Amino acid sequence: MSKGITSKNEDYSQWYNDIVMKADLAEHSAVKGCMVIKPYGYSIWEKMQAVLDQKFKDTGHSNAYFPLFIPKSFFSKEAAHVEGFATECAVVTHYRLKNDGEGNIIVDPEAKLEEELIVRPTSETIIWNTFKGWVQSYRDLPLLINQWANVVRWEMRTRLFLRTTEFLWQEGHTAHATSEEAVAETKQMLDVYAEFAEKWMALPVVKGVKTANERFAGALDTYCIEALMQDGKALQAGTSHFLGQNFAKAFDVKFTNKEGKIEHVWASSWGVSTRMIGALIMAHSDDLGLVLPPMLAPIQVVIVPIYRNDDDFNNITAYVNELTPKLKKLGVSVKYDNRDSQRPGFKFAEYELKGVPVRLAIGGRDLENGTVELARRDTGEKKTVSQQGLDIYIVQLLDEIQENIYKKAFDYRKEHITIANTYDELKDLLDNKGGFISAHWDGTPETEQKIKEETKATIRCIPLDNKLEDGICIYSGKPSVQRVLFARAY
Amino acid sequence: MSKGITSKNEDYSQWYNDIVMKADLAEHSAVKGCMVIKPYGYSIWEKMQAVLDQKFKDTGHSNAYFPLFIPKSFFSKEAAHVEGFATECAVVTHYRLKNDGEGNIIVDPEAKLEEELIVRPTSETIIWNTFKGWVQSYRDLPLLINQWANVVRWEMRTRLFLRTTEFLWQEGHTAHATSEEAVAETKQMLDVYAEFAEKWMALPVVKGVKTANERFAGALDTYCIEALMQDGKALQAGTSHFLGQNFAKAFDVKFTNKEGKIEHVWASSWGVSTRMIGALIMAHSDDLGLVLPPMLAPIQVVIVPIYRNDDDFNNITAYVNELTPKLKKLGVSVKYDNRDSQRPGFKFAEYELKGVPVRLAIGGRDLENGTVELARRDTGEKKTVSQQGLDIYIVQLLDEIQENIYKKAFDYRKEHITIANTYDELKDLLDNKGGFISAHWDGTPETEQKIKEETKATIRCIPLDNKLEDGICIYSGKPSVQRVLFARAY
Repeated sequence: MSKGITSKNEDYSQWYNDIVMKADLAEHSAVKGCMVIKPYGYSIWEKMQAVLDQKFKDTGHSNAYFPLFIPKSFFSKEAAHVEGFATECAVVTHYRLKNDGEGNIIVDPEAKLEEELIVRPTSETIIWNTFKGWVQSYRDLPLLINQWANVVRWEMRTRLFLRTTEFLWQEGHTAHATSEEAVAETKQMLDVYAEFAEKWMALPVVKGVKTANERFAGALDTYCIEALMQDGKALQAGTSHFLGQNFAKAFDVKFTNKEGKIEHVWASSWGVSTRMIGALIMAHSDDLGLVLPPMLAPIQVVIVPIYRNDDDFNNITAYVNELTPKLKKLGVSVKYDNRDSQRPGFKFAEYELKGVPVRLAIGGRDLENGTVELARRDTGEKKTVSQQGLDIYIVQLLDEIQENIYKKAFDYRKEHITIANTYDELKDLLDNKGGFISAHWDGTPETEQKIKEETKATIRCIPLDNKLEDGICIYSGKPSVQRVLFARAY
Repeated sequence: MSKGITSKNEDYSQWYNDIVMKADLAEHSAVKGCMVIKPYGYSIWEKMQAVLDQKFKDTGHSNAYFPLFIPKSFFSKEAAHVEGFATECAVVTHYRLKNDGEGNIIVDPEAKLEEELIVRPTSETIIWNTFKGWVQSYRDLPLLINQWANVVRWEMRTRLFLRTTEFLWQEGHTAHATSEEAVAETKQMLDVYAEFAEKWMALPVVKGVKTANERFAGALDTYCIEALMQDGKALQAGTSHFLGQNFAKAFDVKFTNKEGKIEHVWASSWGVSTRMIGALIMAHSDDLGLVLPPMLAPIQVVIVPIYRNDDDFNNITAYVNELTPKLKKLGVSVKYDNRDSQRPGFKFAEYELKGVPVRLAIGGRDLENGTVELARRDTGEKKTVSQQGLDIYIVQLLDEIQENIYKKAFDYRKEHITIANTYDELKDLLDNKGGFISAHWDGTPETEQKIKEETKATIRCIPLDNKLEDGICIYSGKPSVQRVLFARAY
């Protein structure tokens, strides 16, 4: 235990909560299941948003905004969708409060809506109802839209960032003239997510396709990126759905193709959410607190002055005032913590807890020697380095840290993709090792469901780069043509 | 009438709607009172957000995110606030839908919330309930928080951007150790808004303070920026509230000051919304469509090729491919519209409608002569200019256009601030000229209310730079110490 953080080996779940709370990322709110994202946590989200938003724009998408509320009847229009989404959700039934005359605020029974409104759990229905007016001809296609928004899914058991009643996300919704184009879009966006996870989040992911049981309600295919957390559980970090013509048919969205024939359009939708912050925390952090990959760290370098008198402090500050603009020019975010209300040791612990990748400590003797003391958050390594060329050194070091954090997660995952050839092996691995378990499955929803009931493991995905391989299902003994990845998951 | 846009002199309200719809800014949704912000409209909002967000950060604020839902009881905690906000709002009473067995989706009566949740109309209550846990000592102050979010106020009569049931905004919420600091913050943020309106939106505003009648529910003082639209009606473009200790007392937020005494903290809140897009449209546009100030135009320069054959087209494109990176390097956003499905005249009309500040048309003869044809959206002026130094010329021209749009709005407003010394004069000016009317008022809510009932004009503000001047109230004949600004308003 350190700084009140539960050890991750002792209680992984408590360790996670401790980091979220003590690193000032988020907290529970007065509203059951809803979180407050605190400034430090939100600044990580802002960094994620900036990168993803640019990638969406670079691939031709435009942002737009659709209503928070969806008429209840919209959910009945797509048969599979209604089963998946119109269940646990917030329902607006009234539009006015009033004073009951005795000083109590009550819901005005007169102000009842004719049709109840659902707070969006996802926006396919309201967006496809809108697309109907936007698409007439092949010239209007493809329609490449993204929305940054809040959504609500009523959750009974919540966990900060990973599963909350309200969360923030982006949802892409696209319309295409052909099935091929819609599939290509679906896969392109999966690649965007995978690149973001691996390069920015330093999080290795398996790209795959979901089985029918795990598919998005209303999709023909759900593609996903699956990551592994340090407790051996999997986490779905993003999904991209090929929706076929399901929503186009449900909302009657047709277009005239180049040959003058009228057809329903083809669709994709794709999203990632504040859940990614949970993945980021769980994948890299340790018992000292958060470990952030430099590319998503709101503060990449913190500088702590160590001084005995005002002269020392002024000299250190003068040096910092030289160094800081050099670093900023190189795109490095720097914080100089010159608070006199806290001692250096307190500050060290605080930035360790908050996962700042590089800490510089500068004392009077460092100034004399032309050095600084540099500490890496990812390895804990401390060393004295020269002030000469320090800015360039730090840029290179940040790259090295980013790579090292990725490599650590990659190695962990490599060790935790294990082959199982029998059901007993699967169960043993689930209980004693965790991770992804590669096993043959007969391809039926029934087998998948039984394995889930008996082991709490689900098929996370069929990897896109899967090799076909004859085998027999570990559960049913029936023939199988490929292995799939099982895991217990968040 | 042009391109189906109603003339602004004929029907101002219809003219506004036509521009919003035909310039692809927004449309009504299937949910009463809620709008869809279309990509072009949203890209203006994104530009506004980027500028404001940077200004908030430069003044020390951090973004965070608080729940969409507020427990009903929170609204009863601040007496004035409840009257103002907990009336027309969306109320969540249930958290589940179900299939009734006959294929109908109904609200599950079993899934009734113990306490109804209100969809936030503004977030003071939930934020101050959270601040209670964040503030203990003077060291925790000031707390400078902003949130970008959607809010819902149930409106019976809506108008795209100007008044919708759901809208997007930012709301700043700050906590301070002293009244003076909170007032200084309130005024600082008003200045940020005023600078944004004048410099970026090219919209001259009057900075002022609201009368008690028009004050934010729960505020001690509401500061505002008031702009004038082309029909002579005023529009409140942003507000900044000094909340005193009202919310701190309601939510019991106290701190230990430097002397060790426990006190309630002092507060401000401030916000601007997508309503600003409505102001932008109404202030500058004309019968040909939108007129955008270059600093907020998603596309600043559009280039239209005019060609008779492929050779022409290729030569023009080669030139555009040289020019575009030069412009982008200077920070100019450029679009090359090389669609072959539309004729130049169609494109000209489209970009005119969408308010693109500068249009370049390039034909074969231009290439021979080393010229381009340049058209300004704000003045309609067309001229042939040299390709030599065109990039620099355009940057200067965009500045000139920005200034010209501001000057036009400024001159209009100058002509429309009129002095009235009698009630008859006021009424006559309201009916026949519009604009701000500067008149003496006895300072009582009763007089203000009666004038409002009789003329539909309200006191927009008491300008901050007001001179004190003895006079008599135009309505009551009682003594007055200063003039205030009356207007009919959006």
